[in-house]
Amino acid sequence: MPPAPLTPERILEATEDVLRRFGPAKATVVDVARALGVSHGSVYRHFGSKAALREAVTERWLDQSHAELSAIAESAGPAAPRLRSWLAALFASKRRKAGDDPELFATYMVLVGENSATVDRHIAEMIAQIAAIIETGVAQGEFSATDPTATARAVWDATNRFHDPAYAAEWGREGIDAAFGAVCDLVLRGLAKSA
Amino acid sequence: MPPAPLTPERILEATEDVLRRFGPAKATVVDVARALGVSHGSVYRHFGSKAALREAVTERWLDQSHAELSAIAESAGPAAPRLRSWLAALFASKRRKAGDDPELFATYMVLVGENSATVDRHIAEMIAQIAAIIETGVAQGEFSATDPTATARAVWDATNRFHDPAYAAEWGREGIDAAFGAVCDLVLRGLAKSA
Repeated sequence: MPPAPLTPERILEATEDVLRRFGPAKATVVDVARALGVSHGSVYRHFGSKAALREAVTERWLDQSHAELSAIAESAGPAAPRLRSWLAALFASKRRKAGDDPELFATYMVLVGENSATVDRHIAEMIAQIAAIIETGVAQGEFSATDPTATARAVWDATNRFHDPAYAAEWGREGIDAAFGAVCDLVLRGLAKSA
Repeated sequence: MPPAPLTPERILEATEDVLRRFGPAKATVVDVARALGVSHGSVYRHFGSKAALREAVTERWLDQSHAELSAIAESAGPAAPRLRSWLAALFASKRRKAGDDPELFATYMVLVGENSATVDRHIAEMIAQIAAIIETGVAQGEFSATDPTATARAVWDATNRFHDPAYAAEWGREGIDAAFGAVCDLVLRGLAKSA
């Protein structure tokens, strides 16, 4: 059987594996190439530098739940329960990332610190999805918001205890789900059009 | 002139000064005693251990703005602008602490990490002040909240970008005041009694 073609996806998977084993300080492109049984030149043909490879793997990790979240954002029906589901799915995905593999999570926190432009792009995409839900809520007469993007940013900020990795240590605590529910209630009441 | 009496307040001021000069890793009770021109036994008569002294200085630092904030919380008039003033005063006091003396701020972040019970007490007091404002808002027919303390906790969580020291690096950024205003608007709309 001929070897599987060397795709960017295979390189990113191998990079994640190498990061998990060696940590971000020690992992090198040569380790990634060795794990794939190719030369490091082959890796560089897809990712021009170690920095580019680290950035791509960070982006892939941050964007893991984009598809699930955008499916919720684009679904039909009333906007209020949709926004609540979206926030709950985001919180669940962050908890999963932090809880399933704390060492890999710590590794990614290092990479996130290196790649602030990638993080900014990720946050902009998240806020755009919230803004899209708010826009349909305004169109459907449920929400009142004169500037959906500014309001979406406020929703993002107001819920940060439940998505910012700085709070990961609190996500397993008793009462966190009640706290999440109380903030969602407050935010959704804040968005609602007064009768 | 006889020497000023050795009060807990004088010891705490000297401790702050010693922490500022030596950092939390190196500062000792002997340094504090030397700065005051007394024996370390005299310091121990007021604070039974180094840990007790560090805890007391942390508490004093956390509680610096309690008087200003509780004066706002207890003032008369409509509750919505009062809550906004309270949140703005809290944000201003945190920014002052972080901005005026970043090294002392970093020192206190270390102490805060050591004294989680002191921090929990501080947060409970902050939430109690918010709850008091919400209660008068409910009594005055402005707010609707069935559980003022749970709602106050949600307000605390929803505004954490503007008081949690984890975000101190963002407090000088452009747009932070607009972001603060947008979150306050959302929260206050969320508290308001629907017409």
